[in-house]
Amino acid sequence: MIKVTLVGTGTVSKHLLRVFSKTDGIHVVQMISSRGDALSKALQTTLRNDNIAQVTEQPDLYIIAVSDDAIAAVSKQFTNSKKLIVHTSGSVSMAVLPREIRSGIFYPLQTFSKGREVDFKTIPICIEADNAEDLELLRTLAESISEAIYEVSSDQRKSLHLAAVFVNNFTNHLFQIGNEICQENDLSFDILKPLIAETIEKISSLTPTDAQTGPAKRNDSKTIERQLGELKNKTHKEVYRVLTKSIKENFNKP
Amino acid sequence: MIKVTLVGTGTVSKHLLRVFSKTDGIHVVQMISSRGDALSKALQTTLRNDNIAQVTEQPDLYIIAVSDDAIAAVSKQFTNSKKLIVHTSGSVSMAVLPREIRSGIFYPLQTFSKGREVDFKTIPICIEADNAEDLELLRTLAESISEAIYEVSSDQRKSLHLAAVFVNNFTNHLFQIGNEICQENDLSFDILKPLIAETIEKISSLTPTDAQTGPAKRNDSKTIERQLGELKNKTHKEVYRVLTKSIKENFNKP
Repeated sequence: MIKVTLVGTGTVSKHLLRVFSKTDGIHVVQMISSRGDALSKALQTTLRNDNIAQVTEQPDLYIIAVSDDAIAAVSKQFTNSKKLIVHTSGSVSMAVLPREIRSGIFYPLQTFSKGREVDFKTIPICIEADNAEDLELLRTLAESISEAIYEVSSDQRKSLHLAAVFVNNFTNHLFQIGNEICQENDLSFDILKPLIAETIEKISSLTPTDAQTGPAKRNDSKTIERQLGELKNKTHKEVYRVLTKSIKENFNKP
Repeated sequence: MIKVTLVGTGTVSKHLLRVFSKTDGIHVVQMISSRGDALSKALQTTLRNDNIAQVTEQPDLYIIAVSDDAIAAVSKQFTNSKKLIVHTSGSVSMAVLPREIRSGIFYPLQTFSKGREVDFKTIPICIEADNAEDLELLRTLAESISEAIYEVSSDQRKSLHLAAVFVNNFTNHLFQIGNEICQENDLSFDILKPLIAETIEKISSLTPTDAQTGPAKRNDSKTIERQLGELKNKTHKEVYRVLTKSIKENFNKP
């Protein structure tokens, strides 16, 4: 049995609470706010877990799931702890945790939204720890909820998080631009969804380079110029221009 | 029975040949090259359709599936035809077809790759025609292979194609950048695939605006500056900067 205390009450913490609560071999002994307070009865009810503040057991580890900027400050409360303290951020180094403690990383690489359940089984969990024993503890914890565990250094994790910004945040924004173009022209965004689905399907069997199509790859300047002319939003024009340039460069590497 | 002659031997034409050949009620009477020649026996064999040049029947319509730039020239061969002539391009107006003919559009909105089969049932087909009767013919043809038929004007189709460049071509390029960042850091691109899958899943239940997350949306300048510093490729830096700017503007609209 691995006993966990969750620190923070945000989206990631709530998702972890949900999956841990229904997993054999993991016991959430407490969920505390980033200030270290036990949760109010009201919040516990919202979280649908009446027991989390009643248990007085010591956890095997603390999982700090708070905003990136708060990790350093929040973790200072645990300077005297003998337990393993990990955070869940993709972009914050393990080194921001106090030197005195046993520190580690438990980073689930996924986009979490309020009110949207995710299947943890397929979520890659990136782990890192100061010593081998703690790494094993994190591996056991991760393996009980997911089938994709990666041991990743702080530097690699930072790069992974950067790549995630491209494939998730920026991709979603391109969908947003597509949606806007549809709305402006009385078209349903639904028309584009099968294309979006196939865009993703393709990279299961092709590399993104092999899957690339379109005017930029073909260097079809006539279409490129015409499409730039069609865009009314100045920033969308810039997005079009820069991505076209980047695709062209990719297919004309020395 | 709708009798079709396919003009052009590229990817779209071959995909149409494949789906028409296995659909009741559609008969491909001939596939001809963009110069109007019947196909060689060798090419027919490659296409796995031995019959296409042996049939002497007149088609009900010609489908011109050639590159955008060639449509105008190729369609001139049909100036004397009494049959319906359509092209399959997303970005070329119906007006480039000769005035004298019955013209129309049969635009399957999907990304086609050589050697990758697609399920036509879910592919939106955008149709347009000069007159109601021809539009009905196209609708019947489209409905026999797909469940998503849209009547779309040339202007709307142009916008749709532009939106498709954002959600497909540009999105795929972001995957390519993600892949590159992984490779540079000895990470498998597979780690990102569940995140990519969820990015797409999300927009089935949320608008792209509601699904947006990340440092740009949060206006987290510390992370943005750090990530810009991590990018070595100058063009990738530009891509990051412009997309970040575009997301910020989207969440700070007046």
